[in-house]
Amino acid sequence: MSPDSAADLMQGPLAIAHLGLDDVINGARSSGVPVTQVEFQPPAGGDPKRLRKLSELYKPKIAKAIEQANQQALEKLLAGQPQLIGVGVARELIPDMQADLFLHAGPPIEWERMSGPLRGAVIGGILLEGLAKTPAQAEKLAAAGKVSFEPCHHHQCVGPMAGLVTSSMPVWIIEDKNSGRRSFCTLNEGLGKVLRYGAYSPEVIERLGFMADILAPILSETLQAHGPVDLKMLMAQALQMGDEGHNRNRAGTSLLIRELAPAMVRLKRDSSDISRVLEFIHSNDHFFLNLSMPMAKCILSGVEDVPFSSMLSVMARNGTDFGIQLACMPGRWFIGPAQDIEGLYFPGFSKDDANPDIGDSTIMETVGIGGFSMAAAPAIVQFVGGTAEDALETTRRMGQITIGRNPVWTIPQLGFAGAPTGIDLQKVVEFNLLPAINTGIAHREPGIGQVGAGLTLPPWECFYAAFDAFYEHCRH
Amino acid sequence: MSPDSAADLMQGPLAIAHLGLDDVINGARSSGVPVTQVEFQPPAGGDPKRLRKLSELYKPKIAKAIEQANQQALEKLLAGQPQLIGVGVARELIPDMQADLFLHAGPPIEWERMSGPLRGAVIGGILLEGLAKTPAQAEKLAAAGKVSFEPCHHHQCVGPMAGLVTSSMPVWIIEDKNSGRRSFCTLNEGLGKVLRYGAYSPEVIERLGFMADILAPILSETLQAHGPVDLKMLMAQALQMGDEGHNRNRAGTSLLIRELAPAMVRLKRDSSDISRVLEFIHSNDHFFLNLSMPMAKCILSGVEDVPFSSMLSVMARNGTDFGIQLACMPGRWFIGPAQDIEGLYFPGFSKDDANPDIGDSTIMETVGIGGFSMAAAPAIVQFVGGTAEDALETTRRMGQITIGRNPVWTIPQLGFAGAPTGIDLQKVVEFNLLPAINTGIAHREPGIGQVGAGLTLPPWECFYAAFDAFYEHCRH
Repeated sequence: MSPDSAADLMQGPLAIAHLGLDDVINGARSSGVPVTQVEFQPPAGGDPKRLRKLSELYKPKIAKAIEQANQQALEKLLAGQPQLIGVGVARELIPDMQADLFLHAGPPIEWERMSGPLRGAVIGGILLEGLAKTPAQAEKLAAAGKVSFEPCHHHQCVGPMAGLVTSSMPVWIIEDKNSGRRSFCTLNEGLGKVLRYGAYSPEVIERLGFMADILAPILSETLQAHGPVDLKMLMAQALQMGDEGHNRNRAGTSLLIRELAPAMVRLKRDSSDISRVLEFIHSNDHFFLNLSMPMAKCILSGVEDVPFSSMLSVMARNGTDFGIQLACMPGRWFIGPAQDIEGLYFPGFSKDDANPDIGDSTIMETVGIGGFSMAAAPAIVQFVGGTAEDALETTRRMGQITIGRNPVWTIPQLGFAGAPTGIDLQKVVEFNLLPAINTGIAHREPGIGQVGAGLTLPPWECFYAAFDAFYEHCRH
Repeated sequence: MSPDSAADLMQGPLAIAHLGLDDVINGARSSGVPVTQVEFQPPAGGDPKRLRKLSELYKPKIAKAIEQANQQALEKLLAGQPQLIGVGVARELIPDMQADLFLHAGPPIEWERMSGPLRGAVIGGILLEGLAKTPAQAEKLAAAGKVSFEPCHHHQCVGPMAGLVTSSMPVWIIEDKNSGRRSFCTLNEGLGKVLRYGAYSPEVIERLGFMADILAPILSETLQAHGPVDLKMLMAQALQMGDEGHNRNRAGTSLLIRELAPAMVRLKRDSSDISRVLEFIHSNDHFFLNLSMPMAKCILSGVEDVPFSSMLSVMARNGTDFGIQLACMPGRWFIGPAQDIEGLYFPGFSKDDANPDIGDSTIMETVGIGGFSMAAAPAIVQFVGGTAEDALETTRRMGQITIGRNPVWTIPQLGFAGAPTGIDLQKVVEFNLLPAINTGIAHREPGIGQVGAGLTLPPWECFYAAFDAFYEHCRH
């Protein structure tokens, strides 16, 4: 603005658009001058130490190293070719699996700090494995340290909600076509009272029996007959059909059924068992989630160990803590408290019943699906009373904190732009913008199950802790 | 604008925004005054006679009768409850079906005026029915008047593209839950060389044999075991999953497979036949179109005979003519020439190979699906190089020429607004706005098949003819 026009401006009545702290402008405001406050947050939450670190990371030499590392991580992410190749049993497939080892969602946690739904799932798992006969006995056993707990992520596994994996459970086998790298996930149990939401009643255990005895063998034989299924392409098609791949998996599940049914029917198997399997999958629109999650894990395990990359390789919650990992420091957790969820509740339940955020399913957002691809699923905004425009806006916003776009996972609603992919820790901190997460809601007590679904955010704590560690990593 | 401010306006340099005929403003333009021409067309294409008729129809007494009739027609349309109840054989089910009667798409037409793809389909139908042994014999037979031709629509039938129905063909049976009113359609043959696109080679006839001998009986038994399928709900779900229900039917086909597969597997049938049926449906994303078309016909046959209603009850093309019918004058055709299609062509084909618009599938647009629900299927705009915004705009525009919205068929991308439903002839003429149609493109020669897909419009002739007749109808 030239001095002249600034002078011109002051000739009219004074009005102020203010960007900054309230206190600075309160004098003008109290004199009756109209003040419009511009929404603004300084970078890095305005913390002077973090701001200084951020500036350091922008020095040309370091910035260039980070940029190159992130491009390398992005290339690795986009090069992933995850295929569904089979179904097997956890103890025979998962690295270092043991009879008394219980894998769970999220970062490491001991029994004492476990939330209700995770405890409920552990009780169910102990009953399933025959280590105890009653829930009370099972709880005593767990509290006495008679079983070990480790995160799924430490064993190339992911699990939705409680994410419990025990040695006898059937698991999907996902393999990267190029590297042979594998990941695993249990099969989705369906809706209502299910182990992953912390329910362990006889119907839950009985259903797990059907899954191990009938569902898994039939799927295993079907895949042997059919050959590998390209999950990345299936996900791409589902995004064109209104799935965002986390809270909505109706298209993915439908596409899986039509892909596998012809081969399944040809099996030398009792036709009523095959029918039951098809009915079981048909009755559960989230069946595909337990395939897309290990697909995402298989892709993201390929970006581990890229020094100087600020890309996230893991986001996961155990119902108590939210943990993240970085591509440059594989295996190291950065932790914060699991958050509440904004959502819609099933009839008879409310926010008071809800457990904080739980599950490994945030691997979907970590790879660019779920909240990041919200624009693909305008129907999902019904969950939270939003609009189709909100869904577009969420995906646009996530584009600010990601390293690139996935050209295979395109979103028709955004002119076939690729899904925003590869969360950049540095951008999250700089823009004060947390990853948007879609998720289910578990009851806080063990034994009950799902009570709703909605949207949430990770805690800042884990991002700030990761940022401090990333800063140290880059300095050395 | 007050006189003062008008005077103020004239003090600055002159610029003109002009709405009307070029000639009026050419004087100013040649004097160097900048002129912005506003896009404008007078109502009813500016034809003085039609304008006068339009004014007559707006006289309170007639306008009220039309308004009430249209609301009644809309209620009837929305009350439709079309269900898929079975599969049977044309000669046993279709009213007044005969061994030598060949039903075809669109308004009535004799052999001499038939386009290539319709002729090709007739040749194929004659071969299929064993009335001739070679295509040359079949052609001679058809030319000699040895078979009769009538529109599908005269027999509660609809057929995509050539729409040929012969007496031995299997047909879907759709029944309105409340009235018992029925409609029929053949089963979709798949892609490539198929009868409906005018191909009649041995592979085409062989496939029709498989459909009659294996596909249809298995589907018939499956539906007996499964019970009726609510097609209106299935269509509603498909709209939430990226189908617009005419050029894209991937979701509808997927949902049908997962719905029927469990019951199909339980049939006492050879498992390799069941597998072949599932594979056949899986291999053809348009399989659902032959269900949604008779669904639409079943709904729209419920709005026939509503005096004074300007709602369209039929739009259909035979490849030579485009015909429409009105709810107030059931059975009476208004005709114009079938139009060219703007679209994408399969490799090796171009616009020169294309037959004009053909098929009864415009019944989808007539009921509010297809071009009218384009907003639900942003992926479809790839066909014509458009954007997701174009898709939204098409549905918004069609809202201007429809009588209401269908609350069951909601479009997430437009804030769950209902599909614009019930085309209003009077609004089409008044706003100079033709219904948007999505469609496949057939080769103009018999025997070749599909060469592309795209968008088109009906000819004005049939709308103007219908409007003149509607005017006479309302005056008496």
